[in-house]
Amino acid sequence: MEVATVVEDRRRLGDTETRSFTFGQPPDALELESGARFGPVTVAYETYGTLNAEKTNAILVLHALSGDAHAAGMRPGEKSPGWWDDMIGPGKGLDTDRYFVISSNVLGGCRGTTGPSSPNPETGRPYALDFPTITIKDMVSVQRRLVRYLGIEKLLSVVGGSMGGMQALQWLVSYPEMVRTAIPIATTLKHAPQQIAFDEVGRQSIMGDSNWKGGNYYGGPLPSNGLAVARMVGHITYMSDASMAEKFGRRLKPDPTHQSLKFGSDFEVEGYLRYRGDNFVKRFDANSYLYITKAMDYFDVIGDGRLQDVFRGVKAKVLVIAFKSDWLYPAYQSQEIIRACKLAGVEATYCEINSTYGHDAFLLEVEEETDLISHFLKNASNGLCAH
Amino acid sequence: MEVATVVEDRRRLGDTETRSFTFGQPPDALELESGARFGPVTVAYETYGTLNAEKTNAILVLHALSGDAHAAGMRPGEKSPGWWDDMIGPGKGLDTDRYFVISSNVLGGCRGTTGPSSPNPETGRPYALDFPTITIKDMVSVQRRLVRYLGIEKLLSVVGGSMGGMQALQWLVSYPEMVRTAIPIATTLKHAPQQIAFDEVGRQSIMGDSNWKGGNYYGGPLPSNGLAVARMVGHITYMSDASMAEKFGRRLKPDPTHQSLKFGSDFEVEGYLRYRGDNFVKRFDANSYLYITKAMDYFDVIGDGRLQDVFRGVKAKVLVIAFKSDWLYPAYQSQEIIRACKLAGVEATYCEINSTYGHDAFLLEVEEETDLISHFLKNASNGLCAH
Repeated sequence: MEVATVVEDRRRLGDTETRSFTFGQPPDALELESGARFGPVTVAYETYGTLNAEKTNAILVLHALSGDAHAAGMRPGEKSPGWWDDMIGPGKGLDTDRYFVISSNVLGGCRGTTGPSSPNPETGRPYALDFPTITIKDMVSVQRRLVRYLGIEKLLSVVGGSMGGMQALQWLVSYPEMVRTAIPIATTLKHAPQQIAFDEVGRQSIMGDSNWKGGNYYGGPLPSNGLAVARMVGHITYMSDASMAEKFGRRLKPDPTHQSLKFGSDFEVEGYLRYRGDNFVKRFDANSYLYITKAMDYFDVIGDGRLQDVFRGVKAKVLVIAFKSDWLYPAYQSQEIIRACKLAGVEATYCEINSTYGHDAFLLEVEEETDLISHFLKNASNGLCAH
Repeated sequence: MEVATVVEDRRRLGDTETRSFTFGQPPDALELESGARFGPVTVAYETYGTLNAEKTNAILVLHALSGDAHAAGMRPGEKSPGWWDDMIGPGKGLDTDRYFVISSNVLGGCRGTTGPSSPNPETGRPYALDFPTITIKDMVSVQRRLVRYLGIEKLLSVVGGSMGGMQALQWLVSYPEMVRTAIPIATTLKHAPQQIAFDEVGRQSIMGDSNWKGGNYYGGPLPSNGLAVARMVGHITYMSDASMAEKFGRRLKPDPTHQSLKFGSDFEVEGYLRYRGDNFVKRFDANSYLYITKAMDYFDVIGDGRLQDVFRGVKAKVLVIAFKSDWLYPAYQSQEIIRACKLAGVEATYCEINSTYGHDAFLLEVEEETDLISHFLKNASNGLCAH
């Protein structure tokens, strides 16, 4: 009956609520990596579980390009749960019976956190391209403010996949004293040219849309065609050749009208991509897409330094997870994270999960990922988190 | 001195000239795979070398998506040679001292062969989307008319990479009695969903450009932004992660002006892609891009049949060439061509070249490809081609 109990133990969180925190009103504005000062900044965040009295059980969850603060549970009136609901909840990988989980939307985003679509207090109109250039480091320094605001001195863990993994790595570099463990998943120490190239295609697609108008499209027609194409490119890179073949093959859509509707969606894969593209434009701001992808492209924790110095002095334990069929953030890039850790004497474990889902695997290969993460966290939190 | 002689032997062709041939004036129009009849059709073509008296030394070269009839040599007034000049010429892989090489632009193209930008004789205006849906099979049936017009009953070989390889395979299936050998390079028996997906992104990018206007943009502003993005996506898929890393790394362009020109090209790879995209729109028609990519996506010589029946009855010898780092037309797809040949008792050889250039390797890995092709052709043409 052990198994049945475990399954039952993985319960869904109840209703969750997105809250916000504002800081950095000038002259206490946030100092950005570029040297510019920017504020005020509002951060949208959610928390799940309970912070223990010692404040030692807090885990910060970091989202990918298109994610938001709503990582788990249901918001009243909505039909689907948060983007990592499979991982966060009672009895799950990030077990809310044990841990206090924080999820915040990134700087530059469009889901409650200050970004290019937010009103510029100086003009009352959206910042658009007057929003400053931001980096992964800036996202992390905003998160640090949120964590401190929540009364936490040291995080039990920072966990994230893809761009979320970059933030986890940046946490290790920027605030090593605030992190007990880090779990970077399907990510990289620096964006490689192929990754930059795919992002650049998405940006060119947005900026080439005649509705983009130099970023000043708010209140008018949106650059939806450009953003949809950017998202379609993204979706191809998130899947694998094999997972696409398995999911779609060469199946035609039910009623392919080659002659009457030229260049309609004949194949299921075309319909899928269009659907994903069209859906995305309803929830995402095109300028946020530009700013956030640029932040990823600038990401390079090695920089002009040496690999062995990246994590010099870091005391945290690191669990690196990669996926065999992920060709957007290939396993060799995760292995380079491990190499950087080992060269600096950081305790690090590498796990490569044998999945065909491509980059999406970090959201889909829940079973194995759950086991890896929950065991790692239990070991790391021994004596820190009361049952 | 043997080596020096060989090197010197690879001479460039002199001036070449693009000619054209018109056929299919109604009621003798071309019957398309869709059942529709279409004509007249003009085909742009070039030839190199001399057809022997027995007419047994003709090789048909088949181009890829963006290629044209100008495969080798220089056209008067132009600064760069044809797209496969490395392979075609005296002493080269397709040795014009031995062989008569024919290269024709595909149906649906925009480089001298009838396509959507050609005038519709019924209206005097470009066909635009009144151009009929075409397939790889239709391209090949146009080529057959050209070959017959040139007085050739049987080709020594059909040779092509990428979409050119699909045409070579289609030749084996459509006109097996007209082909002595085939050399499909970096290609596939059928377009897989990932290949369809990348094409669909390109099409959506073009059709989402406000200048596209349902295809009726001729005489007005062109859907250049959309076409450029389509081409950029293409270029990423033609290279490999490794070749991009080698060529660009994370090098910045000489004067990255992050602050003054937001979302300009910071990285060399961005500048390269923009340059390639911008150049492409000067020479390629967006509607041709739609029609030709759709033809590739429809390509499936297996269809509802069985793999063992695809090449049933084919007497030609086949040389299949693939490249290790080609992830757009991965080696496993070339191995499937071999499997289909072997299952049908067709004599077939498989060579996988160890290149980092990705799909572009079929144009770049000249040395090894030259040796493979020239030996294969010499064996196949023993007794057929006088020295």
